[in-house]
Amino acid sequence: MLRVGSRHSPRPPKTGAVHGRPHGPDAQLHAQALAAGLDTEALLDRVAEILDELECETEIVRIVDHHIPFGVESDLGDGDEWPKILAKILAADILIIGTSIWFGVRSSVCQMVIERLDGTYNDTNEVGQYPLYNTVGGVVVTGNEDGAHDAAGTTLFNLGHLGCPVPPNADCYWVGDSGPGPSFIEADGWNRSAYTRKTASWMAHNVVHLARILRERPIPPEGNTVPGWQPIKVDGPS
Amino acid sequence: MLRVGSRHSPRPPKTGAVHGRPHGPDAQLHAQALAAGLDTEALLDRVAEILDELECETEIVRIVDHHIPFGVESDLGDGDEWPKILAKILAADILIIGTSIWFGVRSSVCQMVIERLDGTYNDTNEVGQYPLYNTVGGVVVTGNEDGAHDAAGTTLFNLGHLGCPVPPNADCYWVGDSGPGPSFIEADGWNRSAYTRKTASWMAHNVVHLARILRERPIPPEGNTVPGWQPIKVDGPS
Amino acid sequence: MLRVGSRHSPRPPKTGAVHGRPHGPDAQLHAQALAAGLDTEALLDRVAEILDELECETEIVRIVDHHIPFGVESDLGDGDEWPKILAKILAADILIIGTSIWFGVRSSVCQMVIERLDGTYNDTNEVGQYPLYNTVGGVVVTGNEDGAHDAAGTTLFNLGHLGCPVPPNADCYWVGDSGPGPSFIEADGWNRSAYTRKTASWMAHNVVHLARILRERPIPPEGNTVPGWQPIKVDGPS
Amino acid sequence: MLRVGSRHSPRPPKTGAVHGRPHGPDAQLHAQALAAGLDTEALLDRVAEILDELECETEIVRIVDHHIPFGVESDLGDGDEWPKILAKILAADILIIGTSIWFGVRSSVCQMVIERLDGTYNDTNEVGQYPLYNTVGGVVVTGNEDGAHDAAGTTLFNLGHLGCPVPPNADCYWVGDSGPGPSFIEADGWNRSAYTRKTASWMAHNVVHLARILRERPIPPEGNTVPGWQPIKVDGPS
Repeated sequence: MLRVGSRHSPRPPKTGAVHGRPHGPDAQLHAQALAAGLDTEALLDRVAEILDELECETEIVRIVDHHIPFGVESDLGDGDEWPKILAKILAADILIIGTSIWFGVRSSVCQMVIERLDGTYNDTNEVGQYPLYNTVGGVVVTGNEDGAHDAAGTTLFNLGHLGCPVPPNADCYWVGDSGPGPSFIEADGWNRSAYTRKTASWMAHNVVHLARILRERPIPPEGNTVPGWQPIKVDGPS
Repeated sequence: MLRVGSRHSPRPPKTGAVHGRPHGPDAQLHAQALAAGLDTEALLDRVAEILDELECETEIVRIVDHHIPFGVESDLGDGDEWPKILAKILAADILIIGTSIWFGVRSSVCQMVIERLDGTYNDTNEVGQYPLYNTVGGVVVTGNEDGAHDAAGTTLFNLGHLGCPVPPNADCYWVGDSGPGPSFIEADGWNRSAYTRKTASWMAHNVVHLARILRERPIPPEGNTVPGWQPIKVDGPS
Repeated sequence: MLRVGSRHSPRPPKTGAVHGRPHGPDAQLHAQALAAGLDTEALLDRVAEILDELECETEIVRIVDHHIPFGVESDLGDGDEWPKILAKILAADILIIGTSIWFGVRSSVCQMVIERLDGTYNDTNEVGQYPLYNTVGGVVVTGNEDGAHDAAGTTLFNLGHLGCPVPPNADCYWVGDSGPGPSFIEADGWNRSAYTRKTASWMAHNVVHLARILRERPIPPEGNTVPGWQPIKVDGPS
Repeated sequence: MLRVGSRHSPRPPKTGAVHGRPHGPDAQLHAQALAAGLDTEALLDRVAEILDELECETEIVRIVDHHIPFGVESDLGDGDEWPKILAKILAADILIIGTSIWFGVRSSVCQMVIERLDGTYNDTNEVGQYPLYNTVGGVVVTGNEDGAHDAAGTTLFNLGHLGCPVPPNADCYWVGDSGPGPSFIEADGWNRSAYTRKTASWMAHNVVHLARILRERPIPPEGNTVPGWQPIKVDGPS
């Protein structure tokens, strides 16, 4: 059963939500990756290895192993497992979306994840920006024919709307020859595509670079806070 | 739980499947519409009224009222309700997909429907074409900001790959002003948009026109049958 | 120099324009193809061979060999060579657009061609529909990495808006492996891609099938004529 | 006349090219905007006013006032005026692309500009990255119906591939109601759309924020330099 939320009459954002991201410059960097299919997970595994060398710890969540209903709110109740995944995302420095391609565009599973992230528009970080501000975005795409540019471009653009800064060359993809063919795993895409390996490495380096930079110098809450947001007043004598 | 099928090693298509579409030129025309949201259903209702005037009967299925797992096969078992919806589609002369827009593209529910239609590639009609050959395609889109061209264009293109002929002006959409705003229903989009009314009427007329034409003169199975397909041999003395 | 026309306040369409397309069912079928690059032209050459076997004559115009300014009117003057190309298009039964891919989408040359076709919205055929009604649409795409679905889908959708009916499987593409690589010609894409050959043949057959069907049974001018259009009154006693 | 370059066999990048961007943290910030139409220029004017308040100087180049041939190299000779525009881009801290929408996607003029930027892949900055590394990207879109998400998303994605970091909410658009209608200027879109004004301000703030941050802490040339690039050796005893 779908529950479709309405974006046009948002609740007033919660003020001063603290998402527990460690902002200290020396803390371990953490990337949260979401895999929407087995092949994409296989490519994310490789990206995670590179991130590990760069001292960034990566957790990969397989979306399809969880009960996540359609909708555009952050908690739909009834056993919805999205809230716990969202908590991981909000605690991370880097968010990497992995998607497969079906019919030339990103998969329904990935689209569902993006729609659930719509719920973050109803919240803010502790300074009044959307919660994903300063969470660096990246994307990984696998498919057996064509559509990687569309899937990656749409996804990075959506992440940017949600608040994620995006470094250069923040996508990595593998697709086969024209027309249907073997998948990334079956084709041994990693070992056979120098392009995929190169772009995976560039992407990993750049999300880490930008996350380190933004940890020291986050995008300030000037000119980009949610209208109506107010800082929480501290109780006590003033 | 997602079950992801593999398109690259298709099973040999079933031969000679008969889908029960009444091919007689005088039979009642039938349109099958799939609604992926309440607003889209409201627009489909209006389109159905026009189709009714043109002596085409329309059934609208609300996708989210059914249990339809992710996947790319036509029957995923375990209470999958897609097979009965697919049967309706295959019996229809016209298939109209209704989708809402989220993050600038068609919704996850619509994308899931398209992915389930992928299963028809493993089957053929009675003359060896993909099952949706000669089923005329149309699309209806509602959204509260922007993305109708992308959603409609992607969907019609996918329907064409699946076998649907597409007449001119086969889409109809409503979106609001720039940025989030009221939905189609809330904004009384039908009464307030002459453009939506005009294109709904054009679309309805054209899918009916083309369906009538193709009923008398279907696209022949020459140069477009699935490789490896063989007609069923009739038992008996030869 | 760009001249940007305005689509929102169109001139009243010319009434009763006759575009000289031979409507007799026995007349030679004619396809007009537009090539936006050398590789695409090479693929169009192969499609034209198949069309020739199906008794459909094809003319390929290389867009870049002509002086065609940016704009959205059918005749921009000052040596504009678009009018003579448009005359060819309007006289054809089939219009096939060929485009290369740059940055994941169709090329600027192809986009420019589509924009010039916008000018046809200011005109009608002899029965009050947009001039491209009943001109069957197809598309051919070549690229050296990824983006064929986006380029083909966008183009067929645009042709549908302009009036073209689109048969199933009306696109044919070739792209290389992930990342930049050799072009269609350099890679000998035709001989090395069974998928490209298959889809070229399907596309050619289907545009011819639909063109023959529509020649006998064109989409009637019911519910799809341009608002305000009036048939030309024949002079004489009434 | 089109000259189509080939991306698959790039010339070895020039080494150590210095583009003259002032890297001192106290230097005036400079944004280079490219307008592909009058309406887009009008919206860029407003963005420039906000940037001015943020002490970022903006220059807007009207693309159609210059002779810029189709192609994918940085200098096509024969009076090509792209090189002087490219020099401005490479000297800027911020690059903002302005595009109109035609047929649901970005205009041919904008697509041509993006294709010309392809030529920068044959060059590097002084540390071996693509020349646009650390040039912050943004996009502005105007149209009279629908397609802003597609146009903005594609453009920001392309800028990211070229090397531009993209801050959150880096796009600003205006489109009218469903269907063709008055343009941004005619509709007084700026004064009538709170959404367009809000997103223009967010975008302006964020490109400036990120440009200031990257001036102090540019993305380091680690893991993202062009293969084969070598720093220029300094003459002298070693």
